[in-house]
Amino acid sequence: MQTFGYAAKTADARLAPFTFERRALRPNDVAMEILYCGVCHSDLHQARNDWGFSRYPIVPGHEIVGRVTAVGPEVTRYKVGDAVAVGCMVDSCQQCDQCRKGEEQLCRESNTQTYNGLDRITREPTLGGYAKHLVVREEFVLRVPAGLDLAKAAPLLCAGITTYSPLRTWNVGPGSRVAVVGLGGLGHMAVKLAAGMGADVTVLSRTPDKLVDALELGADALLVSSDAKAMSAAKSSFDLIIDTIPVRHDVSPYMMLLDVDATLVIVGQVGPIDEQSTFPMILGRRRLAGSPIGGIAQTQEMLDFCAKKNILPDCEMIRMDEINEAFERMERSDVRYRFVIDMASLKE
Amino acid sequence: MQTFGYAAKTADARLAPFTFERRALRPNDVAMEILYCGVCHSDLHQARNDWGFSRYPIVPGHEIVGRVTAVGPEVTRYKVGDAVAVGCMVDSCQQCDQCRKGEEQLCRESNTQTYNGLDRITREPTLGGYAKHLVVREEFVLRVPAGLDLAKAAPLLCAGITTYSPLRTWNVGPGSRVAVVGLGGLGHMAVKLAAGMGADVTVLSRTPDKLVDALELGADALLVSSDAKAMSAAKSSFDLIIDTIPVRHDVSPYMMLLDVDATLVIVGQVGPIDEQSTFPMILGRRRLAGSPIGGIAQTQEMLDFCAKKNILPDCEMIRMDEINEAFERMERSDVRYRFVIDMASLKE
Repeated sequence: MQTFGYAAKTADARLAPFTFERRALRPNDVAMEILYCGVCHSDLHQARNDWGFSRYPIVPGHEIVGRVTAVGPEVTRYKVGDAVAVGCMVDSCQQCDQCRKGEEQLCRESNTQTYNGLDRITREPTLGGYAKHLVVREEFVLRVPAGLDLAKAAPLLCAGITTYSPLRTWNVGPGSRVAVVGLGGLGHMAVKLAAGMGADVTVLSRTPDKLVDALELGADALLVSSDAKAMSAAKSSFDLIIDTIPVRHDVSPYMMLLDVDATLVIVGQVGPIDEQSTFPMILGRRRLAGSPIGGIAQTQEMLDFCAKKNILPDCEMIRMDEINEAFERMERSDVRYRFVIDMASLKE
Repeated sequence: MQTFGYAAKTADARLAPFTFERRALRPNDVAMEILYCGVCHSDLHQARNDWGFSRYPIVPGHEIVGRVTAVGPEVTRYKVGDAVAVGCMVDSCQQCDQCRKGEEQLCRESNTQTYNGLDRITREPTLGGYAKHLVVREEFVLRVPAGLDLAKAAPLLCAGITTYSPLRTWNVGPGSRVAVVGLGGLGHMAVKLAAGMGADVTVLSRTPDKLVDALELGADALLVSSDAKAMSAAKSSFDLIIDTIPVRHDVSPYMMLLDVDATLVIVGQVGPIDEQSTFPMILGRRRLAGSPIGGIAQTQEMLDFCAKKNILPDCEMIRMDEINEAFERMERSDVRYRFVIDMASLKE
């Protein structure tokens, strides 16, 4: 099927209109028309080859919401017209211990990324959701629950699950003391989701400016990380810290805030962090961890949870042809809190 | 009571004979004659003020085995002649949540270190086990189980519990895949204890030289960290890595060896480690943690476990007047695997 979208042709190029082929339906494939696609920080990183493994042309986009337009003959769970979603991965080996546990994101053979991956059958590069149509095997298609606003649901597929998954891994529930560092696309979802789970949520910020925003998102408090007295008073007071800062930084000031056996989970920066001392870790048996997205079953659980609790990202809708400006604004953190492309704006 | 031992008078001074007072027995105190004292890397760090908070004169030593010589009127668990031991701490608040859980090492008011601490009543500096006598409150005295060789038991009080505690925290048991980095005082105990718990134990070493030693200590294999092919083949193959390297180093090569959700625990280096990337943590939900000694109840459990399993450190006995040479040899890793001072060699 011929479709069209926006692609970067080189690491230096701006995104521009691009016509390409989606594969013919395999028996277990679902075809969809994309209605909305969220704009993730990693889209920008991969378009510019910041991580060194981009293949061009690259069509970014892995926060995808759409409607089913056709299904292969073996598809049982979806039918034409269903509201569906696709996140960061579109395939995995389906055989290893991790896949069998429903942790396809941790597939022993690596999952297949929605874009800049390699199709497991043809070995052709995968192309993402900044496009009009998508074809994905049934096992990697999510159902958008009734009641969830389609226009706002897209960022749940990456920003949502990336923060939901560690909250579940580290057993956050009523009364858990959770801090969130960084109030961007991921951070604002971490606040909403942790609050939705009944946790006591504190936003950590360098300045007090974000107090009103933090409270509006559902946080109980703002802790100003440049206030040495407040930071000292908050020592050992959190069960979990979700660190969503998407650039290199120093985690040391936050480590001391963890209680005994508590964990700081990095979900934002993929790459180097500043040198640190082992003092806080050894003295309080504190832990530092990373966490990727969740598995497909957990992603569905997260969508259902958001529908039930009426949790949605704060989105700024853009047209497809505004994507380059959106990238620039995202780099300046000038977005509250996630850009979503309205794919109705994309004309061939 | 007047006693005598060896002290450093300044950060630059060699340890030398030193006469000093032990406190008169409080109602809950146990007095003991010290028979053996292990030599820990931190003794050297603190004698030389490497951590910046040493008080002089400093009498090091926190791996202490002796016999009870007197007890206060409220002491119920020990009597004159009992074989006893004291480790890294001699007091704590006994009131906070951590103390009530038996995790005195994590006391909210900080535990009182056996040396270079401050007595909780008099605020006088505590002086350690490189000495003839010691007075400690009953709650911080351990019983040396019958059958445990007194001459070799001393290193269990720090090297033993520091490696036993994380093995228990991270639920090591039969079939657990444990790797040990660094084969010194702590590392060799980690191998023996993990093997004693039924784990599959691998020693990680830069060169193959230590194969025979590793196998003799109870390890099942040696993995040569400079062998890129072997390291790549060992990716994601351990449930727990105990990192006992006592100096600044790079944990990155080891992080990739952890399986999903597995942890590398630092127990050696207290201070900076090299800059690292979050890639291995995020991609495999891997964790980095620190761990201190264990609580008093767990230390007793460890001593009982070692007696039952006949696990003892490999010790080189020295005279008290050989301590400065022992420090120098320890700095060159020239000891298999722990120096123990025979206190019978200490004459006034």
